[in-house]
Amino acid sequence: MIHPSVVLGANVTIGENVVIEENVIIGDSVSIGHHVVIKKDTKIGNFVQVGELTVLGKPTSSNKKMARKPGKALDSLVIDDHVIIGCNSVLYRGAKLNSGVFVGDLASIREKVVIGEDSIIGRNAIVETNTQIGNRVTIQTGCYITADMVIEDEVFIGPCCSSSNDKYMGMGIYKHQGPVIKKGAKIGNNATLLPAITIGENAIVGAGSVVTKDVPPDKTVVGNPGRILK
Amino acid sequence: MIHPSVVLGANVTIGENVVIEENVIIGDSVSIGHHVVIKKDTKIGNFVQVGELTVLGKPTSSNKKMARKPGKALDSLVIDDHVIIGCNSVLYRGAKLNSGVFVGDLASIREKVVIGEDSIIGRNAIVETNTQIGNRVTIQTGCYITADMVIEDEVFIGPCCSSSNDKYMGMGIYKHQGPVIKKGAKIGNNATLLPAITIGENAIVGAGSVVTKDVPPDKTVVGNPGRILK
Amino acid sequence: MIHPSVVLGANVTIGENVVIEENVIIGDSVSIGHHVVIKKDTKIGNFVQVGELTVLGKPTSSNKKMARKPGKALDSLVIDDHVIIGCNSVLYRGAKLNSGVFVGDLASIREKVVIGEDSIIGRNAIVETNTQIGNRVTIQTGCYITADMVIEDEVFIGPCCSSSNDKYMGMGIYKHQGPVIKKGAKIGNNATLLPAITIGENAIVGAGSVVTKDVPPDKTVVGNPGRILK
Repeated sequence: MIHPSVVLGANVTIGENVVIEENVIIGDSVSIGHHVVIKKDTKIGNFVQVGELTVLGKPTSSNKKMARKPGKALDSLVIDDHVIIGCNSVLYRGAKLNSGVFVGDLASIREKVVIGEDSIIGRNAIVETNTQIGNRVTIQTGCYITADMVIEDEVFIGPCCSSSNDKYMGMGIYKHQGPVIKKGAKIGNNATLLPAITIGENAIVGAGSVVTKDVPPDKTVVGNPGRILK
Repeated sequence: MIHPSVVLGANVTIGENVVIEENVIIGDSVSIGHHVVIKKDTKIGNFVQVGELTVLGKPTSSNKKMARKPGKALDSLVIDDHVIIGCNSVLYRGAKLNSGVFVGDLASIREKVVIGEDSIIGRNAIVETNTQIGNRVTIQTGCYITADMVIEDEVFIGPCCSSSNDKYMGMGIYKHQGPVIKKGAKIGNNATLLPAITIGENAIVGAGSVVTKDVPPDKTVVGNPGRILK
Repeated sequence: MIHPSVVLGANVTIGENVVIEENVIIGDSVSIGHHVVIKKDTKIGNFVQVGELTVLGKPTSSNKKMARKPGKALDSLVIDDHVIIGCNSVLYRGAKLNSGVFVGDLASIREKVVIGEDSIIGRNAIVETNTQIGNRVTIQTGCYITADMVIEDEVFIGPCCSSSNDKYMGMGIYKHQGPVIKKGAKIGNNATLLPAITIGENAIVGAGSVVTKDVPPDKTVVGNPGRILK
């Protein structure tokens, strides 16, 4: 069902059983897979591809134990030109994908996330709310990108890396801060990043390392806990 | 398609292309997203929300290599009042979600799992069969909760933690036992828990630790292998 | 919608809202869940079961930053007899699943992957392109199996293991090589495998280990970095 308020560009291909809710705007030459759900107010640019069984523009939800309640009304989900989105993925209202972004299958991207041009979010990867991702960043398959993180341009994050933003592990409401990863840094697969650390420009984190403190620019860290290689 | 045997409460909202099989019971003020599949015999309470593209009440399946065959007939999937379930998730027949539970997107919950009141199962998290989870537990995004585990009240498990229940790694049919996590313990992100260990009350496991033995109550363990901090 | 060119065997059960595109061939006694999408040219044998909301035969996609572009035309997705596939999974065009394979929910399997008889791919597991998996292999839930890997017969990989194939982490186009895991080796949960290492026959990798070099046959490795136990 396509709501009568939906604005569709030229040469749009829509699969079977697609649901498009009210006030959605879709540009030219967009392709939407079968069984996709596009929630209200979503804005999609030109030449965008959306895989099967994906949800775009999901609103926030929470139960009474969750610290972070939905605040004021979120902006729409905005998807710029030439973005490619996989199958069975869930993108929330209030995220912004800039042009050329690639999102794999089974991924999810939360509210107030911004993803820069041509960046890659791998399959099964998760990006939590309020994280800012630069241009030409690679976040590989299965990564967990916590909330309140900053990832600068050209960063590479290998598969299955994990990060956190809550050093007191759920003990109350206070300031959360995820890691900051500066321009060009590279993180090996299955590395663990603790809250609020900074990984310097062009630094390297070895696969499987547990990074508990800041890493200076151009340095390499390995091990558990992570130590700087001389 | 809604099977004619389905019992629907008052003020139920049902999305498009929803399939509800025989003998399903749905309470009042329930909201079901588009393209949801509710398998037979599932029981849903009042004020429940189910996201798009989710499967409720999946029966067990296995191939000939799998040790654990479906046994006697499983109970229904039971979802109590005020439960919230995300999009693209898979909940099995024989699980029980108590009131106020939150299940994120892309999660899966297996047979004979019980989840206590107001507990949170994060996005992409997996809970294997026969695991018991207490009240007000937080299991964050991407966690792997193995089978035959016990997680007591108010435990906090950070993102991407992994656990196992099979110390001989697939070598035969013998007793499997997952970790036991006692009340109020906290596990940092991407920690690894070995089979049959006990993590004591209010103990803390550091991010990225590999826990190979029991952790006494109120102690903190870090490193690989995990060592108790003095 | 079932395309008129589709060939259906005897006793095929098809759920609601299933989409089957052109030139698909389906054998006898196959069961297809609700809201499944079967893309063009997919070949399915006899006695196959496909769970709800799964995509079969997805073609490759990429953005301009991705190193590996779709090459010449891929073969069809081929699924042999007695294969069981879960819900919300994504299987790509050009993969081959031999008879008796089990694929869990929320899994994804890429192009040019071959999976041997009776092997298990757990829920949420990911197998990247061009990886060869032997017979009676167990890949447990949440594993990340990188591209260009070789996994021989009867290997056991515990939950949440991670592997990589790119030692320069995205710095250019050169030869990628994933790990080689020889017959009967066992890998503990959440282990990290670096590119191009070989794990010998019947070797054991402890849970949470970070394997940075070859492991000889019959040896056990633990720790970060992994060391051989005497």
